[in-house]
Amino acid sequence: MSGSTLGKNIKMTTFGESHGPALGVIIDGFPAGMSLYKEDIQKFLDRRKPGQSSITTQRKEADEVEILSGLFEDKTTGTPIALLVRNTSQRSSDYSEIASYYRPGHADFSFDSKYGFRDYRGGGRSSGRETIGRVAAGSLCSKLLSEMGIELCAYTKAIGDIEIDYNNFDKATILSTQTAMPDADADKRAVEYITKCRAEKDSVGGVIEIVIKGVPAGIGDPVFDKLDAELAKAIMSVGAVKAVEIGDGIKVSRSKGSENNDSFCIKDKKVTTSTNHCGGILGGISNGNDIILRAYIKPTPSIASDQQTINKDGEEITVNIKGRHDPIIVPRAVVVLEAMCAFTILDSMITNMSSKAEYLKDFYSNKR
Amino acid sequence: MSGSTLGKNIKMTTFGESHGPALGVIIDGFPAGMSLYKEDIQKFLDRRKPGQSSITTQRKEADEVEILSGLFEDKTTGTPIALLVRNTSQRSSDYSEIASYYRPGHADFSFDSKYGFRDYRGGGRSSGRETIGRVAAGSLCSKLLSEMGIELCAYTKAIGDIEIDYNNFDKATILSTQTAMPDADADKRAVEYITKCRAEKDSVGGVIEIVIKGVPAGIGDPVFDKLDAELAKAIMSVGAVKAVEIGDGIKVSRSKGSENNDSFCIKDKKVTTSTNHCGGILGGISNGNDIILRAYIKPTPSIASDQQTINKDGEEITVNIKGRHDPIIVPRAVVVLEAMCAFTILDSMITNMSSKAEYLKDFYSNKR
Amino acid sequence: MSGSTLGKNIKMTTFGESHGPALGVIIDGFPAGMSLYKEDIQKFLDRRKPGQSSITTQRKEADEVEILSGLFEDKTTGTPIALLVRNTSQRSSDYSEIASYYRPGHADFSFDSKYGFRDYRGGGRSSGRETIGRVAAGSLCSKLLSEMGIELCAYTKAIGDIEIDYNNFDKATILSTQTAMPDADADKRAVEYITKCRAEKDSVGGVIEIVIKGVPAGIGDPVFDKLDAELAKAIMSVGAVKAVEIGDGIKVSRSKGSENNDSFCIKDKKVTTSTNHCGGILGGISNGNDIILRAYIKPTPSIASDQQTINKDGEEITVNIKGRHDPIIVPRAVVVLEAMCAFTILDSMITNMSSKAEYLKDFYSNKR
Amino acid sequence: MSGSTLGKNIKMTTFGESHGPALGVIIDGFPAGMSLYKEDIQKFLDRRKPGQSSITTQRKEADEVEILSGLFEDKTTGTPIALLVRNTSQRSSDYSEIASYYRPGHADFSFDSKYGFRDYRGGGRSSGRETIGRVAAGSLCSKLLSEMGIELCAYTKAIGDIEIDYNNFDKATILSTQTAMPDADADKRAVEYITKCRAEKDSVGGVIEIVIKGVPAGIGDPVFDKLDAELAKAIMSVGAVKAVEIGDGIKVSRSKGSENNDSFCIKDKKVTTSTNHCGGILGGISNGNDIILRAYIKPTPSIASDQQTINKDGEEITVNIKGRHDPIIVPRAVVVLEAMCAFTILDSMITNMSSKAEYLKDFYSNKR
Repeated sequence: MSGSTLGKNIKMTTFGESHGPALGVIIDGFPAGMSLYKEDIQKFLDRRKPGQSSITTQRKEADEVEILSGLFEDKTTGTPIALLVRNTSQRSSDYSEIASYYRPGHADFSFDSKYGFRDYRGGGRSSGRETIGRVAAGSLCSKLLSEMGIELCAYTKAIGDIEIDYNNFDKATILSTQTAMPDADADKRAVEYITKCRAEKDSVGGVIEIVIKGVPAGIGDPVFDKLDAELAKAIMSVGAVKAVEIGDGIKVSRSKGSENNDSFCIKDKKVTTSTNHCGGILGGISNGNDIILRAYIKPTPSIASDQQTINKDGEEITVNIKGRHDPIIVPRAVVVLEAMCAFTILDSMITNMSSKAEYLKDFYSNKR
Repeated sequence: MSGSTLGKNIKMTTFGESHGPALGVIIDGFPAGMSLYKEDIQKFLDRRKPGQSSITTQRKEADEVEILSGLFEDKTTGTPIALLVRNTSQRSSDYSEIASYYRPGHADFSFDSKYGFRDYRGGGRSSGRETIGRVAAGSLCSKLLSEMGIELCAYTKAIGDIEIDYNNFDKATILSTQTAMPDADADKRAVEYITKCRAEKDSVGGVIEIVIKGVPAGIGDPVFDKLDAELAKAIMSVGAVKAVEIGDGIKVSRSKGSENNDSFCIKDKKVTTSTNHCGGILGGISNGNDIILRAYIKPTPSIASDQQTINKDGEEITVNIKGRHDPIIVPRAVVVLEAMCAFTILDSMITNMSSKAEYLKDFYSNKR
Repeated sequence: MSGSTLGKNIKMTTFGESHGPALGVIIDGFPAGMSLYKEDIQKFLDRRKPGQSSITTQRKEADEVEILSGLFEDKTTGTPIALLVRNTSQRSSDYSEIASYYRPGHADFSFDSKYGFRDYRGGGRSSGRETIGRVAAGSLCSKLLSEMGIELCAYTKAIGDIEIDYNNFDKATILSTQTAMPDADADKRAVEYITKCRAEKDSVGGVIEIVIKGVPAGIGDPVFDKLDAELAKAIMSVGAVKAVEIGDGIKVSRSKGSENNDSFCIKDKKVTTSTNHCGGILGGISNGNDIILRAYIKPTPSIASDQQTINKDGEEITVNIKGRHDPIIVPRAVVVLEAMCAFTILDSMITNMSSKAEYLKDFYSNKR
Repeated sequence: MSGSTLGKNIKMTTFGESHGPALGVIIDGFPAGMSLYKEDIQKFLDRRKPGQSSITTQRKEADEVEILSGLFEDKTTGTPIALLVRNTSQRSSDYSEIASYYRPGHADFSFDSKYGFRDYRGGGRSSGRETIGRVAAGSLCSKLLSEMGIELCAYTKAIGDIEIDYNNFDKATILSTQTAMPDADADKRAVEYITKCRAEKDSVGGVIEIVIKGVPAGIGDPVFDKLDAELAKAIMSVGAVKAVEIGDGIKVSRSKGSENNDSFCIKDKKVTTSTNHCGGILGGISNGNDIILRAYIKPTPSIASDQQTINKDGEEITVNIKGRHDPIIVPRAVVVLEAMCAFTILDSMITNMSSKAEYLKDFYSNKR
């Protein structure tokens, strides 16, 4: 019963509730000697910060990070890096009413069933604010991966029925569009759609795509800890995700072997595959091609219209939930999924360093 | 680099290669005192055994299990249960050719990249035969779950474009149809489709659905070890799976909050939800409704037609792979996914026993 | 490379350096519903606080704990409990000199060998201040164990050649003597001895004994995770410990089977043993008798006399280390070892809840 | 409740009971490409085999190993290595009587308390035969360590009051003396002592010392996973061990800082310490000097004289235990402790490969 730690050779442990004093994360096992500044982390946190656009919650949080340990003279020391974010915009009174009933689509009933009671303020531990720690941890991993030539790119692929047009795909716009779509036209239509749904007291879902470039072939383990299995867990562990796919994903169930197999070939003197239906992973191990994943996100369960539910006394009631809610989770979840993938890839690359006896011998004959 | 063990309070560790002396599994932490007979395990293994129908490989393997430890007077002792299956139908000569090149869609290149070489006979460790250990472990978990009133039901939902008709759904036929479809008519059409594809030297994919009834509310952990995250990992760790979804899964990305939220209600004096879009899990924790999952399976990569690839010297070549292959993996994978889910659910239920301090106090005041 | 987390079903993760902003701990998996007040934790921290007697460092630290998460309405919620202690008495200038050389008996050289550099201020992560997190975590575990009738008692057994007299043993004095000895006379002699050694610019070692009463028979696992093996790791992981023994420990190597075997007998209608040479654990599993452990602690490596060592350039030099040091670690380590044992026993008791299939069935037929 | 797996980046999982069909081990995560022959393993197993001298049990077991997986063309493949030893000398009838009562000094009562019943034949899972798997796993680790210039040497240091004379120390005799003492004279006296005790229907204990040469500085982790903490757990997890010490161990509690601190110095252009009181580990991390450990072993609990105990009905009875027992465990435990240390050191060295960000960057710029 201790599921707040993830990872093998690097571990992240998150803590904190939506309306408690603070949230944060401990990253243990991060290699020593990487230069790190508060800004490296803050930049990532700012991407998930609320109150930044017309289509997210209007609640404002500074979400400013404090580094408590693991850094010395602006370098990681190899010891646990503790990162803290204080909650500042708590209006617990907003939530006094929901203490007595179970909101549809939320974890209220699940938590009560498990623990006997819950911190009901803003969802407590089940709040999306828990992901602050994940994003903070991911920022470090992304930095180190980037220094090794590995780049992660996550963006909104679809909102409702509106999908990005891959011909209009413009990576540079991901950080500037309100939806985190890399296509200004799709973004515009999506914002209209979201605005309309919100006016109707409703919420919408969408799809996030993550592309990881530069991972060498050979990363991941062949059985339970397949690289795609670890990525699936990391992605599915983010609150509103209801499906995960790699490469062609869903589509493969309707395709034939002759269509789906990716032929190996040589490009620029390097082994690669002519197509990439498999999404860069074969047998649980990377093959050197781009790793491509997709996460399907449900509409925000908090909506402003009347809903049926039950209260703690087991009576069926009609409720109307107050509060400052996002009409869509997707744009703010993009950086969360990027963080989860960065963490998983880095951990897998570290774990892979001892795949051959020869590596171990080389390492200790050179390094000691 | 040790990804052959899965689980927290019960662990399974599989071993073995397709053409080595034997395959098997150690299950550690299984509770003591459950009656267990060889037949309980064999029954599950027989469901994945090759050579049983016209649409699987014609290779015959007895796949007979031997219990090496952990049982005394037909009861589990609480100590590791070691289960062994000898390989008997090895024709290593079939594979001598593939040592020199990388089969498209297979893990050959990934393994060589990671380990420097590989046991190329029949895929070695990346062979589907590795799942023998998983199925054996799952059979024990299913038995104990069943004694607690929890039933898992897995079946083929779709093959190519052919889907089961939920009005024709007949659970009893799962074990008798060649495709493991619970719909005799869909089965018939699917067999025709598979037979046609195989004649064209091709292979097909499909979808497996798993329904788990009877899991009490409160199982699973709220952050990284969400029940759906653990299930996603367990399912994605099975060779050919390329996507996993829970509940409405993919569809939620296009739905609205007002449609997707499941209202809590009271039925037969028990809390439940009027719909089950979420698939029985909210916030990573079961809500007492049925848990519904789907896995999307790729077409068998081994096909009898010519394919482009490279050899170990980096030369582009055309190959035609010999051997006795399944034209579809789906029917034999059904029991594998059922086993993975049974293991994950049981482990999560054990882990949940200490969610409340009160449980711990009760336990030790009654039991010691 | 992530050794800052301990435990199976409950996990503690410590963070922080001697002269960084803060130290602390995350306890994950602690059962929900136990009442907890800041004072419960502070009481334990105060037992290890510096500056409290003539024989410890004169450095003053408030060591006041802040609860950041995991508590709601004064009850544990089942989610991660984050505890923070700010460093307030940092005089980093004291340490500027030691940046350039390796102190004998300290981890300076080990850290540089591993990480390439180190936070040299006050020992950084290798400082005894790291144990603040352990003590904070232990305070919660002790409280819950106490509610289950399990009591831990740790005390100083010996300092140099001065041992407690078991006829004079007075548990009540542990918290009032400067040495944490349960014998006022031995305490007096020990303080004189320590004072004399300090005057000679030297330091001393000692022995801590821990007695755990009320652990039911059946706790612990039979192979690698034997209860005594887990306790040995937990105890040896505390900085200055150089040996661990259980029951008669060292002495058993010279005894005979006829002397060392403890006969089972019945007392007050309960199974027990007539003697307790084994220290309450047989085959790695508790037998219901008192669990008795001893830890041997080295003299503080920081002494005020001249010492030989080398600097970072590999030159042999003579150094004289400045700073405010404890002439003995033992009295302040007593509560640390008590905490480590409390944590280990509680985790093992939780882990034991699923030893029988019958327990699992009972649990879910009663509780859901 | 799954304590049969040990390790982080390599894991060993043992299985099997004394009188079940077989015992064995799975080693997962062992690096690929090391040459390995059955003889490498058998050589180690033969050192713990019964029936080899006048002072061990006269029971004969072939203890012949079979390699089931993880090897291809005499090289490790990186996938799980499964090793099996069949039980051949089972005389279960010897044990029918002990089913009804609890043997003093044995785990019978502990097992029944935990699991409700036990495989009572020969101690079942608590038998010393469980260590077969450990020794088999250790043989592989020793081989790879040896290829990196690291040598482990374990031997009997004392039996009863008879200690080896370090002036007579002759490493070459360890494998030829009956006691595994590196001193022929001490061996002779010890054999006489054991023979006399056995004639008196009694058993004796002793001390094993392990010296590990060649471990580079920097191995181990600073907090819970200190190298000495991991070694302490590994050693204490072996059945009859009741105390573990590192370096001067027990003695340090009576020494002063000025005596106990090891001065750093330069020898042959390498950093070392002039003395080695600390036993090669400082702050939980190796310092490059020899690692020196000691384990204190209790006398065999099975003795041929009458003993008091209770039966399953809670009646106090006198018993006389039949069977073929070792009058001393120490000589056969030497190779077991050597194996446990080899495993722990190798796992720690693998884990250490990512201590610096620079290592990771170098690795992936060279190796991919």
